[in-house]
Amino acid sequence: MAKFRLDETDHQILNMLIDNTRTPFTDIAKKLNISAGTVHVRVKKMEEAGIILGSSLTLNYEKLGYAFIAYVGIFLQNTSQTKFVLERINEIPYVTVAHVTTGKFNVFCKIRARDTQHAKDIIFKLDDIEGVYRTETMISLEESINDKKRLMHSIFENL
Amino acid sequence: MAKFRLDETDHQILNMLIDNTRTPFTDIAKKLNISAGTVHVRVKKMEEAGIILGSSLTLNYEKLGYAFIAYVGIFLQNTSQTKFVLERINEIPYVTVAHVTTGKFNVFCKIRARDTQHAKDIIFKLDDIEGVYRTETMISLEESINDKKRLMHSIFENL
Amino acid sequence: MAKFRLDETDHQILNMLIDNTRTPFTDIAKKLNISAGTVHVRVKKMEEAGIILGSSLTLNYEKLGYAFIAYVGIFLQNTSQTKFVLERINEIPYVTVAHVTTGKFNVFCKIRARDTQHAKDIIFKLDDIEGVYRTETMISLEESINDKKRLMHSIFENL
Amino acid sequence: MAKFRLDETDHQILNMLIDNTRTPFTDIAKKLNISAGTVHVRVKKMEEAGIILGSSLTLNYEKLGYAFIAYVGIFLQNTSQTKFVLERINEIPYVTVAHVTTGKFNVFCKIRARDTQHAKDIIFKLDDIEGVYRTETMISLEESINDKKRLMHSIFENL
Amino acid sequence: MAKFRLDETDHQILNMLIDNTRTPFTDIAKKLNISAGTVHVRVKKMEEAGIILGSSLTLNYEKLGYAFIAYVGIFLQNTSQTKFVLERINEIPYVTVAHVTTGKFNVFCKIRARDTQHAKDIIFKLDDIEGVYRTETMISLEESINDKKRLMHSIFENL
Amino acid sequence: MAKFRLDETDHQILNMLIDNTRTPFTDIAKKLNISAGTVHVRVKKMEEAGIILGSSLTLNYEKLGYAFIAYVGIFLQNTSQTKFVLERINEIPYVTVAHVTTGKFNVFCKIRARDTQHAKDIIFKLDDIEGVYRTETMISLEESINDKKRLMHSIFENL
Amino acid sequence: MAKFRLDETDHQILNMLIDNTRTPFTDIAKKLNISAGTVHVRVKKMEEAGIILGSSLTLNYEKLGYAFIAYVGIFLQNTSQTKFVLERINEIPYVTVAHVTTGKFNVFCKIRARDTQHAKDIIFKLDDIEGVYRTETMISLEESINDKKRLMHSIFENL
Amino acid sequence: MAKFRLDETDHQILNMLIDNTRTPFTDIAKKLNISAGTVHVRVKKMEEAGIILGSSLTLNYEKLGYAFIAYVGIFLQNTSQTKFVLERINEIPYVTVAHVTTGKFNVFCKIRARDTQHAKDIIFKLDDIEGVYRTETMISLEESINDKKRLMHSIFENL
Repeated sequence: MAKFRLDETDHQILNMLIDNTRTPFTDIAKKLNISAGTVHVRVKKMEEAGIILGSSLTLNYEKLGYAFIAYVGIFLQNTSQTKFVLERINEIPYVTVAHVTTGKFNVFCKIRARDTQHAKDIIFKLDDIEGVYRTETMISLEESINDKKRLMHSIFENL
Repeated sequence: MAKFRLDETDHQILNMLIDNTRTPFTDIAKKLNISAGTVHVRVKKMEEAGIILGSSLTLNYEKLGYAFIAYVGIFLQNTSQTKFVLERINEIPYVTVAHVTTGKFNVFCKIRARDTQHAKDIIFKLDDIEGVYRTETMISLEESINDKKRLMHSIFENL
Repeated sequence: MAKFRLDETDHQILNMLIDNTRTPFTDIAKKLNISAGTVHVRVKKMEEAGIILGSSLTLNYEKLGYAFIAYVGIFLQNTSQTKFVLERINEIPYVTVAHVTTGKFNVFCKIRARDTQHAKDIIFKLDDIEGVYRTETMISLEESINDKKRLMHSIFENL
Repeated sequence: MAKFRLDETDHQILNMLIDNTRTPFTDIAKKLNISAGTVHVRVKKMEEAGIILGSSLTLNYEKLGYAFIAYVGIFLQNTSQTKFVLERINEIPYVTVAHVTTGKFNVFCKIRARDTQHAKDIIFKLDDIEGVYRTETMISLEESINDKKRLMHSIFENL
Repeated sequence: MAKFRLDETDHQILNMLIDNTRTPFTDIAKKLNISAGTVHVRVKKMEEAGIILGSSLTLNYEKLGYAFIAYVGIFLQNTSQTKFVLERINEIPYVTVAHVTTGKFNVFCKIRARDTQHAKDIIFKLDDIEGVYRTETMISLEESINDKKRLMHSIFENL
Repeated sequence: MAKFRLDETDHQILNMLIDNTRTPFTDIAKKLNISAGTVHVRVKKMEEAGIILGSSLTLNYEKLGYAFIAYVGIFLQNTSQTKFVLERINEIPYVTVAHVTTGKFNVFCKIRARDTQHAKDIIFKLDDIEGVYRTETMISLEESINDKKRLMHSIFENL
Repeated sequence: MAKFRLDETDHQILNMLIDNTRTPFTDIAKKLNISAGTVHVRVKKMEEAGIILGSSLTLNYEKLGYAFIAYVGIFLQNTSQTKFVLERINEIPYVTVAHVTTGKFNVFCKIRARDTQHAKDIIFKLDDIEGVYRTETMISLEESINDKKRLMHSIFENL
Repeated sequence: MAKFRLDETDHQILNMLIDNTRTPFTDIAKKLNISAGTVHVRVKKMEEAGIILGSSLTLNYEKLGYAFIAYVGIFLQNTSQTKFVLERINEIPYVTVAHVTTGKFNVFCKIRARDTQHAKDIIFKLDDIEGVYRTETMISLEESINDKKRLMHSIFENL
């Protein structure tokens, strides 16, 4: 897969947006001693190249009443059903992440729920998808780290 | 845990920011038929209440050369070391998520790496943390879903 | 779920009944310096609120010839059968506890039997319920603790 | 182990007390066509023989804010520590049941907690007991059956 | 299950036969200072009571070319098939022991084979029995103890 | 390992002794149309060659009060301790079989006990042997097959 | 299985060919002080006896873009399908090794792929073979040893 | 990792050598209509580029008395010992392959032995390496596929 070449200016723009996606382009321009138009063009180019896919809010789910996190491993009856099952999983908004994995499980999901009862409902919905053979759940007692910013900064340092 | 009361206007503001964190407040104001100042005040209030913690860029890690995702389960020698080990894990930027969990593992992490060799280095770093007894790794063959927007919209519909 | 508000007097009444469910209300009244009628009203109110569900004898099962305890984990073919299977399990009096669980098993039971042969009969009955896919049994060598009184007292201290 | 011989009258007395431990002896006497004194003597004898160990209230733990149930399997460093560890476990009121078991675990416990965070605290306390090597937790999504009355009636029918 | 009462003389007779099933009754009689007829009557009585079921040769299977020992755990599709499957297993002479077990497996067997290839044939025969769902094999690297005589002597000392 | 050559006559003698180790040599001689002396010489030769190692009584352990059978898998801290641990195991008469195995366990034992309590004592003794790291127990619900005679006959047919 | 008798000269010829299969026979002849015709005859004889099955190039797969190695354990629905499944596996060139195994898996394979995505395709092909029930994958982080030459030399020293 | 560019002629040369490493260069030259010198130069260049690492004999290990194959999974006390342990493993010629792996094991080996007893000796040697915590063995009942030629041809077709 051909890699888009980012130069030092791109890295600096990204570094600032990573810390706050709402940073005005004029602030970035001033800091980097370039014009706001240049910032705009660079960001646009990175979006078109598919490097920047968008941005997302970081909400406090506990304060919103969704404090329950679990990982659910899914066994399929047959891997030929993977695509179909993933489409069904995609209809459950409480599943925030899903991976096709090696090892014990065919698909591995992360769910966010209000409480035990709600988690049970979500797990039962996953279990009832046609082609799902069995699930195993591991419950999070505490989300200690959830931070991609360190990774992002590290990537641009290493490039 | 006392829940902050969000009203219908807050929900609509959040719904727009969820889809694009960079949406100008004037656009939001026009759409909701309120003043930009009101939008500003509302967002500020949600930030101060700790509902909005920030925002993050969604990057295409594959294009940046970080296509390798793995989940690493960590066994500790003793759970009294949990806090210490999490601090050490926090120093490794390639670990983007870490949970204290029930079941088989004491801590469960998600890592992003460049390739197998890089993943090995990260796993060995985790293994070498004092108090870590053993690790088990499950490799992702494909990240099929990674989307909290559906969850966020769903939360505001249910509130 | 709205919590019924218990006051200090309720706690003291419960604390006495926990130690001996047959304590006469007149004894409780004397000790708390209130009228027996008040005790009666309070207990009635707690029963109506669903706080007190009833009372149970604590028998010595070993002396009655039921010394064999096992935990049986049940795998279902499909979680949509959970309700049906629990109704079948409920017809087997030797199953004293059953939980819908996360992790390895779908349903997790506690059974009391006379001996190995009797346990085998009970396990085979569980295995033969329609929708049960497989069971795994863990045998108790000794019931070292079985006491909810410490929990009850602790709850009222913490409320 | 010599078994105490219960006769038909004892069974009938127990059958009535099982359904309600507070049933007045005069009611039992009337129903069985015997004197209240006889009921009293019989119950006393069963208590002295250690058949009746006491009685316990059945409370609605969910209404009291203790809706979280988990099973915790404990691995010891050495089984010679079993007695010591059980004594430590006995100091934690949220552990309501503990068994010495065969199979994977050395000791197997049932705990009741307020929520995930409280469960984590209890599990960490168990983990920190000297001689405990590791724990594994299975969380209950629903307590579907918890009823020893069916067992008790069944025992007296079979005797 | 009512236990046949063995007296001291029975124990001494058994103790001598355990060490050598071919010990002549006259030798036993002389040693115990009783008549050979008494020995004969006692042994007959123990056979009729089902205490002595027979005797078996202890052969050196390695010298006979059967050095390969394995334990095979069998999962059934349904425990109602247990009896049928055990009858089929009983037709395979290389299975010397079979148990209905708790835990992971439904049936647990010991097999003796000539070599790896022969073991494969036996395992495949077990796998092909109708109702057998899956098998798992554990291979013995060395039979270090196979001796019931210590147990037998110990039983008679403890009776 | 050089194999002792058994001829047809040896097989026939063994076949008769397998069914009853106490069969008088004169009976065997008559049936095979050879002299009792020949039978005696042949058996002696097979004993000296180490083919026949001895004989053992088949007792009904249930009638003797030893109805409880379990398999115990033993994990060692280090395989260099295997020999030492086997010697310690050999001092426990209730262990009738022990194998050094591949797979999950280092040593795999069969035990016979009076009941659950007795089994617990034996398992704890195994657990307390120096060098034993952990044990796992699988309990037999029924010994369905325990018969080496079919194997023995089959061996002589195949030789 | 009768073993072909190799003499000292055969061993020395093999020892030289093991180090370099392209060593000219004249070089071998000179070194061993025999004629090139003798070398030729000996090698031919070993080929006809099936001792030498052929030769293979040792390529650097990483340089050829095939750096990804995984082990895949395959569970069959029924072992009677083993032969059929192995024939299907044999049509996938990326499977370089396949074993019928004891223990957890029925068949155990080694695969070489270009990357995670390619490995997923191969694993899905294995999963889709009729009769394959489930697979489990273990990924190699580094092939540290892959060398049969030490074994070959060791065999000839021990013969 | 930069990939050496192989052209069509290189592929054809490799394709012929893969089928027989001893194919004379003159034969290859004739078939490809090029000079033997060109073949020589090309092969040399591929050796210098590290594409061709050497060649190995394919022997029939069963005929040489080494019919026993097993896979051994190794758990280390700490991954920092990986390099040291691999060096010790490298001194055991019966280990033909060793991988650093993800998942359950730290290191995963393939061994070839003469028989069960020999395998036990090798496994015990692995177990006794300093830093090795435990091993688990899976025995091959049949090596059904061991063929890299299909892979090699497939690679050159795909390049």
